[in-house]
Amino acid sequence: MQEKQIKITLEKSTHQKCMEIAERLYELDGEVYRCVGSTLGRTFSGDRRTTIKNLAMLMYTRPQGHLLRSEMALISNMARTIKNREDRSHLMGEYNEILKQVATLDTAFGKVDILDEERARLNTANLHQKFSEDDHLIICIGRTHGSAGNDIGFALADALKINYYDVEIFNQVLSRLEAEKGSVNDDEKGIIGEEFDKYRSNRTFNLKKSLKELSRYHGLTRKDAVFFNQSDLICSMAKSEDFIVMGRCADVILKNNHIPHISIFINAPFELRVHRVMEVNNMSMKQAIRFLKRMDKAHAKYYNFYTGEKWGVAENYDLCINSSSYGIDETVEVIERMINQHPKRKHK
Amino acid sequence: MQEKQIKITLEKSTHQKCMEIAERLYELDGEVYRCVGSTLGRTFSGDRRTTIKNLAMLMYTRPQGHLLRSEMALISNMARTIKNREDRSHLMGEYNEILKQVATLDTAFGKVDILDEERARLNTANLHQKFSEDDHLIICIGRTHGSAGNDIGFALADALKINYYDVEIFNQVLSRLEAEKGSVNDDEKGIIGEEFDKYRSNRTFNLKKSLKELSRYHGLTRKDAVFFNQSDLICSMAKSEDFIVMGRCADVILKNNHIPHISIFINAPFELRVHRVMEVNNMSMKQAIRFLKRMDKAHAKYYNFYTGEKWGVAENYDLCINSSSYGIDETVEVIERMINQHPKRKHK
Repeated sequence: MQEKQIKITLEKSTHQKCMEIAERLYELDGEVYRCVGSTLGRTFSGDRRTTIKNLAMLMYTRPQGHLLRSEMALISNMARTIKNREDRSHLMGEYNEILKQVATLDTAFGKVDILDEERARLNTANLHQKFSEDDHLIICIGRTHGSAGNDIGFALADALKINYYDVEIFNQVLSRLEAEKGSVNDDEKGIIGEEFDKYRSNRTFNLKKSLKELSRYHGLTRKDAVFFNQSDLICSMAKSEDFIVMGRCADVILKNNHIPHISIFINAPFELRVHRVMEVNNMSMKQAIRFLKRMDKAHAKYYNFYTGEKWGVAENYDLCINSSSYGIDETVEVIERMINQHPKRKHK
Repeated sequence: MQEKQIKITLEKSTHQKCMEIAERLYELDGEVYRCVGSTLGRTFSGDRRTTIKNLAMLMYTRPQGHLLRSEMALISNMARTIKNREDRSHLMGEYNEILKQVATLDTAFGKVDILDEERARLNTANLHQKFSEDDHLIICIGRTHGSAGNDIGFALADALKINYYDVEIFNQVLSRLEAEKGSVNDDEKGIIGEEFDKYRSNRTFNLKKSLKELSRYHGLTRKDAVFFNQSDLICSMAKSEDFIVMGRCADVILKNNHIPHISIFINAPFELRVHRVMEVNNMSMKQAIRFLKRMDKAHAKYYNFYTGEKWGVAENYDLCINSSSYGIDETVEVIERMINQHPKRKHK
């Protein structure tokens, strides 16, 4: 019984607060209108009592609260045009005060966040989150072929003075690690990268060889074994160094292992990628289109196979950048600014 | 004949340059290996003469040049692990010198940019581009419903102290402008926003009324007339003020009118949007899913109808942000950092 009483009192007090804020807002609108002298009239043109009541109602109802935001923006947009500096500063001050008051209401717009706590905790570019001293700066870059993603990743690593890993480097490191253990011979270098890697000699695999491999890699195909080796390598590197990793589903691997990182996807419109590939790979337009379609398909298939996620869909990454809007150098700088590492390194 | 002679001389000289760089790189690899003492061996394990020849070849052939990048990254990744500080600094210095030499080659990796010159010229977040004093800071924000895009836009406008425009505000401004001209009466307020706008009373339109409208708006439907009025308003505002505009296909309108701006798309995973909408709109999960699907479809249709472009596809925007990785406040700050306006405004 007493609890119910308290609840009613609290509700009344919120209602009271809303009415007070609404009244201040109504007065502000009148003041702004007087100062601007606009022929468009004031924002609130209805009668005083009804308007204030409606405004107060907007404050404590969802989702209509967002309409309050628009009304407030309309008033502040007008207030910013006031020519008399003193008046402007005075009324913008009052506007900011009202905005602060609104923000204290539980039902205010912007009160329900979209934050994914786990994701934000793992996102090293989210500077509001606190990281342990042991966390490293790890940037995972996915990209479409022809978007200059690798060039951007390499230049970024150079600018940040951190290590750079792409498919070629993983192949070399893994082959050497395996050669050291004596478990894999030279013949098997560079299979993941074979689409990209035409200067290494091509090798043909027959069924017999495939079966032999299957038994060697504890029942995994060689492709899977390479993937799992890479995953292990990425996670163990993440414990000891800062680096940039191109592709390799590194974003999902790190997420699944709860290791903080930044995930970025670099893309550019198809026509621009076609033109770039024509120049870089010395292809005709027809060849370039076919090549890019094949590469996009292969990338998507690989990513989906190992992660179950859709490759290149914006909401799966922290950030997507259109490299054609910036070019290679500026894309590097946008990322540096975004992680607050430009012009000098501030992280750690 | 003489021209051909000169061309051959130039080619020889490029070849000579590549051989010299390759030799320096081969030596650097040896030095790094000696300093690191890794059991993995040096990067270039073949014989000296063949390796240098192959490296030089990588330098003047496309697309194989990108393999040179990986080889160089492998060496510099190793060099960074050298414990003796003097050795490390000496060898990283040599590495940077070689990198600079490589960059002077016409065929070097990273030499073919992905820049879309028209797009970059219009992108106010591309700080490498120069803008006229008359250009304003205009940020176009597209977003999915439930991703807190409007909250982010409003807070960003507040942080940058610039105006904020969303569908509600456009409706109000346009109705007043039209009321001033006497061409539209109050009955017709807020049609574009009717999906969003449930506190304004619903109105039903019949065929007769539609036909009457069609003749009034010079053969356009009212919806089209509103769109074209908004477009005019956006372009004319862009000449006189800094602002943030939510949706309204403003990115494409400004692009088509060659007006510099920044285009951002804000999105979050569907599940998270569902949960946010459940809380904000007080809906069941089933209702929220249906509502969001309907909203996404309506957004996509509207954007596609007026622009011919696909809504929410990353490569159509300068930048896409996953708001769930950051939350409202940090998303605002990421954008501020990205356009170099944080902590104090530097633009203009």
